[in-house]
Amino acid sequence: MNLALLFAEDFVSADRAVLTGRRLAHLNSVLKAAEGDLLPVGLVNGDIGTGRVLHLTDTGATLQVELTEPPPSPLPLTLILAMPRPKMFRRVLQTCATLGAKDIWLINSYKVEKSFWQTPWLSAENLRENMVLGLEQARDTVLPRVHIRKLFKPFVEDELPALLKNTRALVAHPGTNTPCPVHINQPVTLCIGPEGGFIPYEVDKLVEAGCEAVHLGRRILRVETAVPVLLSRLFDACG
Amino acid sequence: MNLALLFAEDFVSADRAVLTGRRLAHLNSVLKAAEGDLLPVGLVNGDIGTGRVLHLTDTGATLQVELTEPPPSPLPLTLILAMPRPKMFRRVLQTCATLGAKDIWLINSYKVEKSFWQTPWLSAENLRENMVLGLEQARDTVLPRVHIRKLFKPFVEDELPALLKNTRALVAHPGTNTPCPVHINQPVTLCIGPEGGFIPYEVDKLVEAGCEAVHLGRRILRVETAVPVLLSRLFDACG
Repeated sequence: MNLALLFAEDFVSADRAVLTGRRLAHLNSVLKAAEGDLLPVGLVNGDIGTGRVLHLTDTGATLQVELTEPPPSPLPLTLILAMPRPKMFRRVLQTCATLGAKDIWLINSYKVEKSFWQTPWLSAENLRENMVLGLEQARDTVLPRVHIRKLFKPFVEDELPALLKNTRALVAHPGTNTPCPVHINQPVTLCIGPEGGFIPYEVDKLVEAGCEAVHLGRRILRVETAVPVLLSRLFDACG
Repeated sequence: MNLALLFAEDFVSADRAVLTGRRLAHLNSVLKAAEGDLLPVGLVNGDIGTGRVLHLTDTGATLQVELTEPPPSPLPLTLILAMPRPKMFRRVLQTCATLGAKDIWLINSYKVEKSFWQTPWLSAENLRENMVLGLEQARDTVLPRVHIRKLFKPFVEDELPALLKNTRALVAHPGTNTPCPVHINQPVTLCIGPEGGFIPYEVDKLVEAGCEAVHLGRRILRVETAVPVLLSRLFDACG
């Protein structure tokens, strides 16, 4: 937690917030904060700044909050991800939030096992909790939007073309001849398949919708590695 | 397992190898291989090619092995990593192997907890097993070398200067003003600190030894994210 993310319900007055629960525990056990200390804080979807610890008890830390600067820039990215295996999904979601992806679409694919969609990590509460952890790591405040689409074909035919408009549209696909571009720093729509990749039918449908198939070299990467590798390759700065 | 890595002890003749244990289980349960199937294989530290399944029993799969091409190129990288927290270390090591890092130094730092060095993941057998998993993911065969240095100062003063010679030497450090270069595609020595970063004394010592402190933008990344982000940023192709 490199920043404590504050929500409307944490505020007891215009510039005072009370930390409880996980954030309070972190304050005590990791940061070993004391009254008078300054901590990095941010208002969800708002600015970042500092919180001075006014009172510290077993049940809450009251902070005097001053928000002074905008959060890091978001990536100009629409990320379309075949739903990962639940154990990996949680880490991937945190990483996406940390790296500044703000628009995340979880889609179906032939190699996405039906059970993946049953994971409790997809509940609104767990999605938010893991995005908050990723944002707090990065000192960002802006919650990504996560869209869940459990049918591949209707998504690709009916929704994807509008998402691709005015963006460089790419699908990461180890089987192709075109290397993934580097540092293009323009709006990108990026599709990443499941472990084992999109099947040829799916790649064809994505290409038909307007995506260009690109590869990352001979090495086959796990999804949790491909995400940071691709985002770092496409965009100069993460923030 | 996108490739089954073969070791000298797997061979029963010049071109026949028998898979057992984890690799056999993967063949059966994930690949659902049958006699006659062709599988991607590679010889440790050697070429890659195919193995045709000749016999398949409960205890072993006999493969007719043909090695036809070199593995993907290694990264021209010396990676110096403050010893990560054990749970993360295993994943970081696999990621390093997958991305083609071949020379990995695990060093001490003020914020490396003493207990991290006690982890069983540092045993020769576990290091090898996790590097093999990372290589098999990437279809690579060349085992990285891992060097363990539990004292920071002697390493930085006595060994680091020789490692840096004829390389671009960098230390990833969020506190600095110079952005990390992109796509330099020349030999690099890269130092990555622990969670919480190197302390100023350590950064000073690394700079004194010849490293340049560079940052990745405003976002603070976890080590397991920083590794793929930095490697992707520094080198055009992973393989």
